[in-house]
Amino acid sequence: MDVISVIRTKRDRGELSDEQIDWVIDAYTRGAVADEQMSALAMAILLNGMNRREIARWTAAMIASGERMDFSSLARPTADKHSTGGVGDKITLPLAPLVAACGAAVPQLSGRGLGHTGGTLDKLESIPGWRALLSNEEMLHVLDTTGAVICAAGDGLAPADKKLYALRDVTGTVEAIPLIASSIMSKKIAEGTGSLVLDVKCGTGAFMKNIEDARELAATMVGLGTDSGVRTVALLTDMSTPLGLTAGNALEVRESVEVLAGGGPADVVELTLALAREMLDAAGLKDADPARALADGSAMDVWRRMIAAQGGDPDAALPVAREQHVVTAPSSGVLTRLDAYDVGIAAWRLGAGRARKEDPVQAGAGVELHAKPGDTVTAGQPLLTLHTDTPDKFDYALKSLTSAYDIAAAGTDFTPNPIVLDRIA
Amino acid sequence: MDVISVIRTKRDRGELSDEQIDWVIDAYTRGAVADEQMSALAMAILLNGMNRREIARWTAAMIASGERMDFSSLARPTADKHSTGGVGDKITLPLAPLVAACGAAVPQLSGRGLGHTGGTLDKLESIPGWRALLSNEEMLHVLDTTGAVICAAGDGLAPADKKLYALRDVTGTVEAIPLIASSIMSKKIAEGTGSLVLDVKCGTGAFMKNIEDARELAATMVGLGTDSGVRTVALLTDMSTPLGLTAGNALEVRESVEVLAGGGPADVVELTLALAREMLDAAGLKDADPARALADGSAMDVWRRMIAAQGGDPDAALPVAREQHVVTAPSSGVLTRLDAYDVGIAAWRLGAGRARKEDPVQAGAGVELHAKPGDTVTAGQPLLTLHTDTPDKFDYALKSLTSAYDIAAAGTDFTPNPIVLDRIA
Repeated sequence: MDVISVIRTKRDRGELSDEQIDWVIDAYTRGAVADEQMSALAMAILLNGMNRREIARWTAAMIASGERMDFSSLARPTADKHSTGGVGDKITLPLAPLVAACGAAVPQLSGRGLGHTGGTLDKLESIPGWRALLSNEEMLHVLDTTGAVICAAGDGLAPADKKLYALRDVTGTVEAIPLIASSIMSKKIAEGTGSLVLDVKCGTGAFMKNIEDARELAATMVGLGTDSGVRTVALLTDMSTPLGLTAGNALEVRESVEVLAGGGPADVVELTLALAREMLDAAGLKDADPARALADGSAMDVWRRMIAAQGGDPDAALPVAREQHVVTAPSSGVLTRLDAYDVGIAAWRLGAGRARKEDPVQAGAGVELHAKPGDTVTAGQPLLTLHTDTPDKFDYALKSLTSAYDIAAAGTDFTPNPIVLDRIA
Repeated sequence: MDVISVIRTKRDRGELSDEQIDWVIDAYTRGAVADEQMSALAMAILLNGMNRREIARWTAAMIASGERMDFSSLARPTADKHSTGGVGDKITLPLAPLVAACGAAVPQLSGRGLGHTGGTLDKLESIPGWRALLSNEEMLHVLDTTGAVICAAGDGLAPADKKLYALRDVTGTVEAIPLIASSIMSKKIAEGTGSLVLDVKCGTGAFMKNIEDARELAATMVGLGTDSGVRTVALLTDMSTPLGLTAGNALEVRESVEVLAGGGPADVVELTLALAREMLDAAGLKDADPARALADGSAMDVWRRMIAAQGGDPDAALPVAREQHVVTAPSSGVLTRLDAYDVGIAAWRLGAGRARKEDPVQAGAGVELHAKPGDTVTAGQPLLTLHTDTPDKFDYALKSLTSAYDIAAAGTDFTPNPIVLDRIA
């Protein structure tokens, strides 16, 4: 087997054999296939595609590159969720304790943010004392005693994916549906969850800008999960506007705690409940009532225990940015668009995100929304509040907001997108 | 400017701007763009193409990455030739002294072989004492005093191409016409020749297997040369069968000397004269008579002076391989096919070529042909003689020859391909 023949097969629109896929993933993980060879193959895959068999084998080979976790010792059924990432997407924070409160075990191995979408671990790290890095034993202990755990994925899980993802990130080969699907699913299957709900975001603030691509990605991932014995369902959800009223680390934790307290923005509550119901269904807990678990405080109890179990103080004051700048509505009328991507870029520029994975993030930075599409606004009222510790970044952040919103004449008939656009099982 | 946006432009079937091309070639040469980024871009170019403007700019940027040579101090007009490479293609050896004997200055900066096609420098290095590596001053001196020089291209010429070619070689991105054309032409234009004749080979033993690809490559290169002020002509020539009766280093030198002595195989003589006439025409020497220069010994005189000027002994006995193995004709009839690629692979396996650029080659190894397509053969007569210093390789070499030839019934009407298939100017 040699790498050039593998590259040529895909370059010339052929199908990669099982042997070629197994060999190239293993050889790349070992360093016998070089980065420049793998990136050429990734570009050929991006442009010429892979069929369902190839994607399944590619995923299996990435899983085989590392260790697999085993949750079979837990008394509860496991339920996992993955989001393809969006602006203001703090759903994991209220969702994991909520589903745990309803009887499932929820292992959420998460990542840090890169670019405009923010990362779950960055958000939780704004809680004083909270630790993302757990050993496998600590992780199982937190999961077993509290029902949920949100922590960093270990290096042992699908190392081929870790290496390939870093490579794709610098070679313009991220946007390949077969590679996105196999990257996500290799980690999720290696984690050993029994059921998985995918939140596939669609819109300007998401990776997938149009519904066709989002549907193809969702169907590919559901197929991969199902073929591997994981009960897998996907919701396609709207990401044309930020989720909730905050984008930024501590800002989103605050909003998540509001949801767990029975309040919070309607869209965040709606999506959290929709995903919770899918997870509980997939885990075989059809009688659970997540709305009641929010209302009766049991989800909040799990949250407090989960945060505390990882060193965090659930009662500590969250960091607040040193400076604020308010953007006001230039006219009166109906807000018909508030662009997720533009808001995400602004939050990132204010310090909530990072440009390189070594960069630190500001806990307090971000964007607060005072209106959402469909709301009536009055000229001069606050529309957005920008938060940062580095006020010299305001101008740069404001540049990304110059065409971020549309206000139509008062009385214009306007219906915002629904949150859940489609369901694929 | 950032490399991912350049990669994405080509990946998404866009046109690269002049600024993008200049930047990416310069940044790659400096090491600011990594190999894995350039290989992803090369694959995107291979699959999505470049237009004439992009190829011209790419070539210009590669020329600008290094030094340019200047032959304006020479009294004679310069004429250069490039072959895309084939099996038994020793034409440069008789051609350079022949054209010099007719009044042109012929600088032939050449390479070593990789794979099944052999390299001009490897062939000449079978002559005892001959040196391929000359300083720029030595090169000009040999050229000025003998009229011709065949030597290794210096590192200063189009270093971007050198780096990119090595990368393409290991990433399955060699077979991209825009990259092949710009690679060849950047070196030829940087060499500063006034005129250039391209021998674009077509057939099983060539890089281009079909006439359409060969024609596209030839037209692309002629366009590039012409746009850069170099009088450029291309001949498309047959490479379905080996050129002449030998493939291998010393074997081909011996055959070349036969041609310079007024003998040699008809196809080698025909192609040498056809290319010589084109070179002399392009150099403005329309009255020269290359056939006479072969017949009257003046081409041989230049050869002897040129070899001697680089330390070689033109009278020394050439190395001979230690072992021979004869392949006989299995039946009587007309030889209708003797495959160039299969013979090239056999010669390579016998030790005439190398697998990696660090490997040595055997001077005496190779394949000798006793018949060519169109010849009548008798069962049991020698068809091929294999030469090697490592007889354990005979079996491996013979494997590549199992379906290398066809013999039709005696009396079958058969006309071999012409040598020159087309001319593009």
